[in-house]
Amino acid sequence: MAVTQARTMPGVLELLPLDQVAFQSMLDAVRRNFERFGFLAVETPVMEFSSVLLTKEGGETERQVYFVQSTGALQAAKDGEVPELALRFDLTVPLARYVAEHEHDLVFPFRRYQIQRVYRGERAQRGRFREFYQCDIDVIGKDALSVRYDAELPAVIYAVFRDLDIGAFTIQINNRKLMRGWLEGLGLADAERQAAVLREVDKLDKRGVDAVRETLTGEAFGLSADAVAKLLDFVAFRSTSLADALAKLASLGTGSEALEQGRAELVEVLNLIKAFGVPESHYALNLSIARGLDYYTGTVYETTLNEHPQIGSICSGGRYENLASHYTKSKLPGVGISIGATRLYWQLREAGLLKGGRSTVQALVAQMDDAELPRYLALATELRSGGINTEVVVEPGKLAKQFKYADRAGIRFVLVLGSDEIAKGTVTVKDLRKQDQFEVARSELVEALRVEIEQATVMPA
Amino acid sequence: MAVTQARTMPGVLELLPLDQVAFQSMLDAVRRNFERFGFLAVETPVMEFSSVLLTKEGGETERQVYFVQSTGALQAAKDGEVPELALRFDLTVPLARYVAEHEHDLVFPFRRYQIQRVYRGERAQRGRFREFYQCDIDVIGKDALSVRYDAELPAVIYAVFRDLDIGAFTIQINNRKLMRGWLEGLGLADAERQAAVLREVDKLDKRGVDAVRETLTGEAFGLSADAVAKLLDFVAFRSTSLADALAKLASLGTGSEALEQGRAELVEVLNLIKAFGVPESHYALNLSIARGLDYYTGTVYETTLNEHPQIGSICSGGRYENLASHYTKSKLPGVGISIGATRLYWQLREAGLLKGGRSTVQALVAQMDDAELPRYLALATELRSGGINTEVVVEPGKLAKQFKYADRAGIRFVLVLGSDEIAKGTVTVKDLRKQDQFEVARSELVEALRVEIEQATVMPA
Repeated sequence: MAVTQARTMPGVLELLPLDQVAFQSMLDAVRRNFERFGFLAVETPVMEFSSVLLTKEGGETERQVYFVQSTGALQAAKDGEVPELALRFDLTVPLARYVAEHEHDLVFPFRRYQIQRVYRGERAQRGRFREFYQCDIDVIGKDALSVRYDAELPAVIYAVFRDLDIGAFTIQINNRKLMRGWLEGLGLADAERQAAVLREVDKLDKRGVDAVRETLTGEAFGLSADAVAKLLDFVAFRSTSLADALAKLASLGTGSEALEQGRAELVEVLNLIKAFGVPESHYALNLSIARGLDYYTGTVYETTLNEHPQIGSICSGGRYENLASHYTKSKLPGVGISIGATRLYWQLREAGLLKGGRSTVQALVAQMDDAELPRYLALATELRSGGINTEVVVEPGKLAKQFKYADRAGIRFVLVLGSDEIAKGTVTVKDLRKQDQFEVARSELVEALRVEIEQATVMPA
Repeated sequence: MAVTQARTMPGVLELLPLDQVAFQSMLDAVRRNFERFGFLAVETPVMEFSSVLLTKEGGETERQVYFVQSTGALQAAKDGEVPELALRFDLTVPLARYVAEHEHDLVFPFRRYQIQRVYRGERAQRGRFREFYQCDIDVIGKDALSVRYDAELPAVIYAVFRDLDIGAFTIQINNRKLMRGWLEGLGLADAERQAAVLREVDKLDKRGVDAVRETLTGEAFGLSADAVAKLLDFVAFRSTSLADALAKLASLGTGSEALEQGRAELVEVLNLIKAFGVPESHYALNLSIARGLDYYTGTVYETTLNEHPQIGSICSGGRYENLASHYTKSKLPGVGISIGATRLYWQLREAGLLKGGRSTVQALVAQMDDAELPRYLALATELRSGGINTEVVVEPGKLAKQFKYADRAGIRFVLVLGSDEIAKGTVTVKDLRKQDQFEVARSELVEALRVEIEQATVMPA
């Protein structure tokens, strides 16, 4: 029979088992910390009605949408007709639809997390994905939502990335009201022009200072060289401590209502982040953070790895006025963050920052004598009841080959129950990671392995 | 602004937060037990190339497939052309593609689990889903795979459903070789006719004995009344113990090669299942289990709830000769099972078998005095470090309202840190589930809550 070539579509990240273990352990850490902070899981269908999904007028994401048609719908489709269903391109629109649909059944402030895949028809390119995981948390208020929640999200970000143990990081914080107010002080009163300028500021990292200066003093913007110099000087500020950040904010002088509001919010948020348990070393006021999307109206966040700035922001978000104006007349202000887990995993792997090669299988019971199989199976049942993930070699084979299998499969412990051990009531444990071995009474085996495993997974301080 | 009605497509199960907790806890238990037995996680993209997915000739599932098109592909599409991409309709075809594609990077026997959603354009109907979770495990051999693995899968099923704690269940086991051999003894030698008869036997639960008898004695099959009576008598057998099952198999007398092979496999599998730790009360030989799909060639499984037979099989599967003949010339025999988690959850909920109403949030720190907020936050940080999922009421509000919130949100513990408690260095714990309260030294709080939580989550024996 002719065979079809087995291949996946471009732009997806399909992982081999040991890489999948590393990726899953990243998602697990994200979920664990989201739940620690009292966020509730939500999952939405991968498809939404196109009429629900595509409410915004022709943005970039809309051009990237994937449409879905059942076999019947495909056959009945007319030219130029928009298919009824489409795949979600983010988790924000489904959240808005979910909250609007279930508004009367939810308890507000509604604290939800969502870890699911989203779909975008990106141009095929290294590091660009058409299917990727997003890990989002949002707190949604009914009518109003205290700015105090803006201080809680950095605490969640801190807990997640500390747990992931991927090196020093900084949560960068700014406030769009402050930025707008400061631009007013510079003579830029028009909201649309302000937004356009902030979008340019947002490109500083990618385009560099000179290119942005040229754009802002060029025809399209027509800002004076002096104003642009002031602006670039202003947005260059990064606080070195909480006191430094507060001093900078105090030094801005009296300003417009927007500036005063933004400053008051920042002062409260920056102070409270510390009370939420985030060390000063891990967050900063960064006046260049603008977040391109006009969607954000107050606090904005980005998170960067201190040693790997080229990776860019690994967790971003902010405060918005109204989540679901397309679907409900209720006012639902919120604050949220998002981690693009697939891209983050890929970048960390590229940068060599991931510990790989470890299986979820913790122990392999070796096969020494086929007649003793029931004994090996009973040992495995004991281990599993004790919470140890265990595989049994069920067929006879050379011991060296069994060790090679365990090594290649990333299994740490091989358990040997030979006639000696059976006579003595012991088990010999070969620790392939430590390249060590020990013999232990069978009644103490589970506890001994647990101790070894726990030592290897102590959370970073 | 006009609002768009927020609604999901029909045929999906979107859950409110507390239901999602129950569902997620089911998926977690499935995953935990899959990993306990040393199965490795695999995830595949939701889309496959249509040319890869649709290799079988026009089956039912193929007519139910959802096709996917990017905006660009939709515009360029020609009438009658099959779109390039489609959503997976099960996890077996993607597994076959995965194993064929990554064959040289995998370690065999390859033990994989996969817990993901699949898509079928089913007719909209109560209890029928267009998007649903499947939880699959398979062991794939290269060239050959010992029948001993056929005895391991029931041990995994047993562990999963014991952990889910949904009442007594029985893993029903049969072997298609035995059935084919027995039909040969009845004079039915043609493989296609045998398969057709087994498909009718598979319908016994749904159609009843009389309807099946009528079909088998009718024109299409043309079996004698005597042969059908013998067949219906034979397939009515359910073993009451391992000895009973072995005695029945021994009583079949000498038969064709297929019967002898099937019997030998069943004897080995039934004996070994016990060695794998499954009590005799939880598995049985059931000679009516045929599994409609010709795909299965040896051992077949179904699992039913003893008290709720109307739910049908909650976990099915079997042995197959060759996983991926469409994609590779390598011979890859395997054995696997699948749990349709969305449907199972829905059925258990309908049957009132689920404990609901519990949040993943374990503790709520109440807000007594706004000036003490940093103290509440510090307490929450302590609890979270101790592994307790904790939410803080960050804004002032009546205490009664805070308790009402916790109750509605399914949070078990409310922690009160008033001026009395602060003075004494204690915390008052209100246990909403037990409707009880106690005061504990702050330094002992985490441990006290852990003990309470662990008591509530002790695994069933």
